[in-house]
Amino acid sequence: MSGNTFGKLFSVTTFGESHGPALGAIVDGCPPGLPLCEADLQRDLDRRRPGSSRHTTQRQEPDQVKILSGVFEGKTTGTSIGLLIENTDQRSKDYSKIKDQFRPAHADYTYHHKYGHRDYRGGGRSSARETAVRVAAGAIAKQYLATHGVQIRGYMSQLGPIKIDFSTWEAVGQNAFFCPDPAKVPELEAYMDQLRRDQDSVGAEITVVADGVPVGLGEPVFDRLDADLAHGLMSINAVKGVEIGAGFDCIAQRGSEHRDEMTPEGFLSNHAGGVLGGISSGQPIVARLALKPTSSITTPGRSIDVHGQAVEVVTKGRHDPCVGIRATPIAEAMMAITLLDHWLRQRGQNGAVSVDTPRLSQC
Amino acid sequence: MSGNTFGKLFSVTTFGESHGPALGAIVDGCPPGLPLCEADLQRDLDRRRPGSSRHTTQRQEPDQVKILSGVFEGKTTGTSIGLLIENTDQRSKDYSKIKDQFRPAHADYTYHHKYGHRDYRGGGRSSARETAVRVAAGAIAKQYLATHGVQIRGYMSQLGPIKIDFSTWEAVGQNAFFCPDPAKVPELEAYMDQLRRDQDSVGAEITVVADGVPVGLGEPVFDRLDADLAHGLMSINAVKGVEIGAGFDCIAQRGSEHRDEMTPEGFLSNHAGGVLGGISSGQPIVARLALKPTSSITTPGRSIDVHGQAVEVVTKGRHDPCVGIRATPIAEAMMAITLLDHWLRQRGQNGAVSVDTPRLSQC
Amino acid sequence: MSGNTFGKLFSVTTFGESHGPALGAIVDGCPPGLPLCEADLQRDLDRRRPGSSRHTTQRQEPDQVKILSGVFEGKTTGTSIGLLIENTDQRSKDYSKIKDQFRPAHADYTYHHKYGHRDYRGGGRSSARETAVRVAAGAIAKQYLATHGVQIRGYMSQLGPIKIDFSTWEAVGQNAFFCPDPAKVPELEAYMDQLRRDQDSVGAEITVVADGVPVGLGEPVFDRLDADLAHGLMSINAVKGVEIGAGFDCIAQRGSEHRDEMTPEGFLSNHAGGVLGGISSGQPIVARLALKPTSSITTPGRSIDVHGQAVEVVTKGRHDPCVGIRATPIAEAMMAITLLDHWLRQRGQNGAVSVDTPRLSQC
Amino acid sequence: MSGNTFGKLFSVTTFGESHGPALGAIVDGCPPGLPLCEADLQRDLDRRRPGSSRHTTQRQEPDQVKILSGVFEGKTTGTSIGLLIENTDQRSKDYSKIKDQFRPAHADYTYHHKYGHRDYRGGGRSSARETAVRVAAGAIAKQYLATHGVQIRGYMSQLGPIKIDFSTWEAVGQNAFFCPDPAKVPELEAYMDQLRRDQDSVGAEITVVADGVPVGLGEPVFDRLDADLAHGLMSINAVKGVEIGAGFDCIAQRGSEHRDEMTPEGFLSNHAGGVLGGISSGQPIVARLALKPTSSITTPGRSIDVHGQAVEVVTKGRHDPCVGIRATPIAEAMMAITLLDHWLRQRGQNGAVSVDTPRLSQC
Repeated sequence: MSGNTFGKLFSVTTFGESHGPALGAIVDGCPPGLPLCEADLQRDLDRRRPGSSRHTTQRQEPDQVKILSGVFEGKTTGTSIGLLIENTDQRSKDYSKIKDQFRPAHADYTYHHKYGHRDYRGGGRSSARETAVRVAAGAIAKQYLATHGVQIRGYMSQLGPIKIDFSTWEAVGQNAFFCPDPAKVPELEAYMDQLRRDQDSVGAEITVVADGVPVGLGEPVFDRLDADLAHGLMSINAVKGVEIGAGFDCIAQRGSEHRDEMTPEGFLSNHAGGVLGGISSGQPIVARLALKPTSSITTPGRSIDVHGQAVEVVTKGRHDPCVGIRATPIAEAMMAITLLDHWLRQRGQNGAVSVDTPRLSQC
Repeated sequence: MSGNTFGKLFSVTTFGESHGPALGAIVDGCPPGLPLCEADLQRDLDRRRPGSSRHTTQRQEPDQVKILSGVFEGKTTGTSIGLLIENTDQRSKDYSKIKDQFRPAHADYTYHHKYGHRDYRGGGRSSARETAVRVAAGAIAKQYLATHGVQIRGYMSQLGPIKIDFSTWEAVGQNAFFCPDPAKVPELEAYMDQLRRDQDSVGAEITVVADGVPVGLGEPVFDRLDADLAHGLMSINAVKGVEIGAGFDCIAQRGSEHRDEMTPEGFLSNHAGGVLGGISSGQPIVARLALKPTSSITTPGRSIDVHGQAVEVVTKGRHDPCVGIRATPIAEAMMAITLLDHWLRQRGQNGAVSVDTPRLSQC
Repeated sequence: MSGNTFGKLFSVTTFGESHGPALGAIVDGCPPGLPLCEADLQRDLDRRRPGSSRHTTQRQEPDQVKILSGVFEGKTTGTSIGLLIENTDQRSKDYSKIKDQFRPAHADYTYHHKYGHRDYRGGGRSSARETAVRVAAGAIAKQYLATHGVQIRGYMSQLGPIKIDFSTWEAVGQNAFFCPDPAKVPELEAYMDQLRRDQDSVGAEITVVADGVPVGLGEPVFDRLDADLAHGLMSINAVKGVEIGAGFDCIAQRGSEHRDEMTPEGFLSNHAGGVLGGISSGQPIVARLALKPTSSITTPGRSIDVHGQAVEVVTKGRHDPCVGIRATPIAEAMMAITLLDHWLRQRGQNGAVSVDTPRLSQC
Repeated sequence: MSGNTFGKLFSVTTFGESHGPALGAIVDGCPPGLPLCEADLQRDLDRRRPGSSRHTTQRQEPDQVKILSGVFEGKTTGTSIGLLIENTDQRSKDYSKIKDQFRPAHADYTYHHKYGHRDYRGGGRSSARETAVRVAAGAIAKQYLATHGVQIRGYMSQLGPIKIDFSTWEAVGQNAFFCPDPAKVPELEAYMDQLRRDQDSVGAEITVVADGVPVGLGEPVFDRLDADLAHGLMSINAVKGVEIGAGFDCIAQRGSEHRDEMTPEGFLSNHAGGVLGGISSGQPIVARLALKPTSSITTPGRSIDVHGQAVEVVTKGRHDPCVGIRATPIAEAMMAITLLDHWLRQRGQNGAVSVDTPRLSQC
């Protein structure tokens, strides 16, 4: 219930540092009877895994997850599920130099002042390595939702200045960028190759979509579905913005344009992104998140050390030049966790999730 | 702890419908010994109050708040604070016509399917009228934070297509739009007058800034300060997007540009919006939120009724043509509640809030 | 979520002081569609009401409850329910004398040191008057549970040294003591009359029973049904002990005696009190609570004042000589709130409450 | 936040089954800077460890705990602490016979009906083996509290019919029963030896005391210190009753006897058990818990199987004939976790824990 738990009925609590022995999570509240094995989690972990292309960190981590409890004879028991991922490729020596320095734009400075001391190796708890177990936990939520017709998928919709239009879901899995448009891939590769030569990093935008979500998920007024989604997505490392549906574009929209009209056959548009009044409408849930460029770059930057003295920081180590590239499975995981939590809450208070509500056609 | 509570150590729970007898809140966890009276809450309530200009709803509500507990001899006692605002100007008859209709883009449809029946008068619980008590509760948080040097202020940064640059805080309080640039006010008035003639509505963007926030607020990995802020701000009616600092602009930024370098004299920029690794950095916290155009407009729209039949909906009643105009105090309230909750959580776990940390100069 | 909220899916948050203008509660998570009106709550409030016999406090409070939200056209809407009870018979002057004194065994001392200052009038927030709104909130939970075949009833099982055997439920409502054995009532009356003459107070034991609870409520390992019941019952003013089933008697029992054997026709005993492994077994839930004697008596007692000086305290005011007498409806309320919360949690995680599980015969 | 988490600011979430590969916990909210190593946890684990005398289960488990995160260079970092204990001595074959049977008084029946299927090996999640990680987590809380002058110790105060008076704390550690009176040990040994010959089990009472607790811990009205203690202690396997201070004895006490009078030198008694109005008074916190006799005995008992057919159950396997014998460290752990959680909550809301409040002399 402190800061390392997310969710109320379906909840995920995590631990683990970048260079500690292991990362782990406890998934609580998973409905019993769900078929589940480690391979079900490994698929998404492999999608997020470092070192799988030249465009991501070269740290080699198999990210093999173990299920330590909560599953018996191939099915969840309804009790808490323990997950463990061992770290195998730490090179902590890389970090000794920056032990007393605050990398600009990094959590070094705030962790130091919040806690008084910190595990400086690879960012410790502030490292995006922590998201591995979110992906494992999210895969459990996805598994449950999939058996109820809900599919959660994401893609990269912008890399640095390059906007990417959605083409097909198949394309997303066929390149290192989660890019839905195969024609754009060479441009992305060229951009990333130049970025590495520039010793710089860049931001990205990810779009996540949940299809098949029934009407009725979301608990106003504070635990609106979109508010909890914003919480979950903004809690991902490097995320600086979250939009639902039309998002910031709705500022300049007129009501007559923004409102999604309905006919007996269905909604005529989806500017709402599948959420009305904080409750799912049966349309696809559409969220976008903006990820900032990695702060860990080898281009020297001005900063200070723990004594307040000016220093020039050069961050060695093996870093992602664009953390957005591996962020798609993480965003999917947080959306899945949020949706399953609200599924269970809806079922708890209202007796059932109205999966049979006549679903309006979806835009 | 269900959906109508926000915050963990400093928490706000609300009730009330648009056309019920009253709205209220229970504010729990307020530190004892804080000087507080009803006038302290009334100031912000008056800033949000309907009917104060021709550009907002003409419903007349005094929004007089009563403190029913938790304050004794002018100071908070540390026990829960009961707040009550009576509704005085309901015209429920306005709504009888849409009783069985779903207004397009309104919560009618989702409330109906989630709960099975709903208080249709004025949107019931889904009405933005609910935010009045948030403003009252937020004023308590503001009062505490102010005594510790934290100031929370917001302004309108865009109305429909009109972008508004920040000029001065003084200007914000001197017009009906919370517009920080006096020179823009005539343009905003003309735009709104035309909008009313068009029987339409429009979106807006609000920017909220917290100055004086010490280093160390935020509880990674899930209850990062920015994640909880996103939760709180996205829970405000009509909000479809939330940004921190550079927000969506960081997508196209390079790391060498985005990172806020530091010198012994301070940060050289604030693209981070005052949050690094989910923890406040001592710089100003800067958030922006996108509000959609009101769905309740008198321009006819296609929809369905509760029987699934096609209907043409015309929403009568007294509505804001731009809900963003009155949203600034609400956004300030949610930021204040979030910050005070994290202030107390930081003090709980870490023993103290480091208000004396050498604060770097702020951009 | 701070200390004034109880329950996770069905939650109750309260405010109000003994001598403030009003007490209130927000009931969140109540399932929609439940028929509910103020009279449904008033019945239990009247059972707890002060001043109804010479054996309780002579403070006259009508304890009229108002429902301010969450009910529309006679049914709950699923949104938060605001409850309000106005205080009408405060005599704050009675307390001016003890303003700077700590009554022995009273919360004066601890409130003073925890919060720094306190509303000393009638005990302020520490007064058992706060339990009025718990009773109102509990009546909502009872109403829901009753429609699902669950009945929650309590009785006084001991007053001071007088043990009271259970006779009939009908008897409970026919005397001022919630005494299930009509033959004992004269003895209780005589005891209480003497107690008043002695200017003293005495403890009591209340037994609460829930019949018709289905198998499956309770969320191990920490939110076991009995653990949450213990939490709720121990949170009632003056309670110093809680037992489930055989309770402290099980210390001296052998396993062969304690274990409730089963046959196809049902359980053969109920030493477990209806809870096995923290989960309801389908047998009646049986809990007992021990209430201490009121600390506010007119017999002088040694104490200190806020300056640490010795004082002799005589507590004037109108107090219950045995708080246990009015505690039965409060204990029922806390059991009802706990059970409904777990009902909803069970339904949330496990999809349904197994009301149709072949119920074993009940002892 | 589901049922496997305890605590709000300092929280413990656990996983693990009796015969799974491992048990574990995530401890969240531990203050940073606390010296901590695995040996600090091992001490209490060794006190709870099975197989250390002939009076407890003969299962051999080293219960070696690993700290996987949250500690760096010998001190806690303030981030979540991952704990892992591997199971090494499972004999699951022992249980194949009772796979389809419900042992009387065991959680078999309720787990089956709640979750639909269950890990029947050794009781799965319902096994008291789960409490090993509570002891590890509690040792962290104890470590923090000890550095602030709070000492938490427990002892067996009754075994079956044998009442045990407190003699010395030193004695407690010098026998297998946590018995504070050395003279009673031979009687306990003889009783247990006979019990084993009888193939039966028996209940016990444990008393836990916290010395040095400052005034002010506890969050009325629901999260009173005693209410949260009751929650934590009742959540321990086999506990059927919890008392604070005089407990059930207060029923027959007069107010003039029960009230703990104060003089400038201190309290004159401690019937309150260190809690007044739900807030610690600075006196020792005294709690007692009643543990039922183990349900797993080899004396045949009547029951039913999953098909509703009558069966005679004989529970093989290696079980404790008195679970109370190893319960003392578990009770200490739950008290420590509860107290630290309230310590942090008090510090959060009220700015400080008043460790310097002139402590009254303690009875």
